[in-house]
Amino acid sequence: MRTRIPRLQASEALLASLVVALLLIAGGAISATGAQEVLSSWNDTAAKTRIMDFVKATTTAGGEGYVAPEDRIAVFDNDGTLWSEQPIYFQFAFMLDRVKTLAPQNPEWKEKEPFKSVLAGDPSGVVEGGEKGVVDLAMTTHAGMTTDEFSKIVTDWFASARHPKTGKPYDEMTYLPMRELLDYLRANGFKTYIVSGGGVEFMRPMAGKMYGIPPEQVVGSMITTEYAVVGDVPVLKRLPKIDFVDDGPGKPAGINKFIGRRPIFAAGNSDGDYEMLRWVTAAKPPRFAMIVHHTDADREVAYDRKSEIGKLDKALDEAERRNWLVVDMKADWRQVFAFEK
Amino acid sequence: MRTRIPRLQASEALLASLVVALLLIAGGAISATGAQEVLSSWNDTAAKTRIMDFVKATTTAGGEGYVAPEDRIAVFDNDGTLWSEQPIYFQFAFMLDRVKTLAPQNPEWKEKEPFKSVLAGDPSGVVEGGEKGVVDLAMTTHAGMTTDEFSKIVTDWFASARHPKTGKPYDEMTYLPMRELLDYLRANGFKTYIVSGGGVEFMRPMAGKMYGIPPEQVVGSMITTEYAVVGDVPVLKRLPKIDFVDDGPGKPAGINKFIGRRPIFAAGNSDGDYEMLRWVTAAKPPRFAMIVHHTDADREVAYDRKSEIGKLDKALDEAERRNWLVVDMKADWRQVFAFEK
Repeated sequence: MRTRIPRLQASEALLASLVVALLLIAGGAISATGAQEVLSSWNDTAAKTRIMDFVKATTTAGGEGYVAPEDRIAVFDNDGTLWSEQPIYFQFAFMLDRVKTLAPQNPEWKEKEPFKSVLAGDPSGVVEGGEKGVVDLAMTTHAGMTTDEFSKIVTDWFASARHPKTGKPYDEMTYLPMRELLDYLRANGFKTYIVSGGGVEFMRPMAGKMYGIPPEQVVGSMITTEYAVVGDVPVLKRLPKIDFVDDGPGKPAGINKFIGRRPIFAAGNSDGDYEMLRWVTAAKPPRFAMIVHHTDADREVAYDRKSEIGKLDKALDEAERRNWLVVDMKADWRQVFAFEK
Repeated sequence: MRTRIPRLQASEALLASLVVALLLIAGGAISATGAQEVLSSWNDTAAKTRIMDFVKATTTAGGEGYVAPEDRIAVFDNDGTLWSEQPIYFQFAFMLDRVKTLAPQNPEWKEKEPFKSVLAGDPSGVVEGGEKGVVDLAMTTHAGMTTDEFSKIVTDWFASARHPKTGKPYDEMTYLPMRELLDYLRANGFKTYIVSGGGVEFMRPMAGKMYGIPPEQVVGSMITTEYAVVGDVPVLKRLPKIDFVDDGPGKPAGINKFIGRRPIFAAGNSDGDYEMLRWVTAAKPPRFAMIVHHTDADREVAYDRKSEIGKLDKALDEAERRNWLVVDMKADWRQVFAFEK
């Protein structure tokens, strides 16, 4: 059959307009008791103004800085930019827990590094053992199952694990001001992406709940998967083989590979984001780059140039030269986590 | 500053509703002269009905087959599914033209295969020379420039090249019924993706104009890119190194990698799409798979099992067993290309 999209009759149009009017009036009444604020956990400092000025410029039709909605791509690093990365990378905590869970089926691990150190409660031994140990650990805990199985393992871990410092579930350890920024950008027609050095399949199962970001808008490091048919069921097996490292110079490459166009907004917090910020801001304006500077040892953590827990050095130097916004967590954020009073 | 989203006053709401009413009435009047049809270049056969029944079921709230909008992912092969692939893959035609364009700067090619065959007007010699020759040709023509430069080369080629059989620009060689299907799915909340064995950066510059598909929704084969700073400008260089082959079993892997969730709708036309169709339909219903069966030697081309120009064999066998829709181009499509009278 040929199916026609019915055209709206004038009478239907009038009815529709009445419904719209009633909804708008009702909406007005509701908003009087719960007026929404933009970026409400940001202090009223220059940082907030700069962000809002950029959004206003890019969304004002006819203005010099206007950007069409389809080109409003915004990319965010994850560890230390959207969620906490201290005192331990969440994915590293996941890895250590996973070794403990799998230990009973692998009795030989008690005598074999890097597992021995983990099971003895000394994960620092793994890191000191160098890159090979960390990769061994990652491959053992992240490969050997199907993609569906791994997704469930990750979801289950987030449901039960607790952050070592706050005792909160890891999915509550996101920065409230950054979640508000994601919401604010999306409300202004931006498409928000995560571009992280972390594993893509570690973030995807949670990114919707935590940030309102769908799986297809998460770019990250990944291992190789392989199609296989088990019984009569096709699956994707996770192989112990690194496919792509989405960090440092890998970030612009990852953006090009997965998104295929240059974002106009990028946020990071460390030198691992430097190349991403450079690449995003190298094209013609308007472009916006920002760095979350961890300056708040009380509410979260403080580090930059000479710190042992993180590195923000080159990117901090360049921020001034390139006019990137440096957000001072202590001064610019009224609240860091949603669970704070 | 704290910025409030102003709440709509009742008077503004009434004004807004009046504007909406006027627009709707005007819209109704316009549509009376140009009523839109759904899938209008499809004949009224069972194929069209099956597609529409699936869309109706997945979009009917409260129905058994309902699928939330965010899970309405649809994936389409490109060569032979969305655009023609006969008598030559468009990307292969691009490659041959590119060799001719670059020949004056590479005088040694006159005596060196695979370039010699191309320049002598005998591209079949390249194919007969085996995979190495084709890869050499692909790397020479697709690598060595920045991503921005390559994008321009592709766009320029599409603007000037003509299809050898029809004499039309290549971007007019898309199947009208499939473009209508893309539109129809999107109008019903589906997110449409290309998942092709072709090069992702060959398709992305044109996918918006040709299909209404943005760059980030094009998945394909790719070569490795590398971040570099030239002068003070960061660029991505295209290296002569294959990164990912998005064909056959690579298609489900590519979908998982780039989209991160399983589509509910997949369309292909050859055995290279078999694993994709299998993987998409292996999860719990509702799932829809379709094969474009090239049965129309007059308007386009005909091939399947024993053909020398394409291969649709295993996927055709399995279609019946797995209840995949086989679209008979000759019987099910009223019109193939938009330029036909």
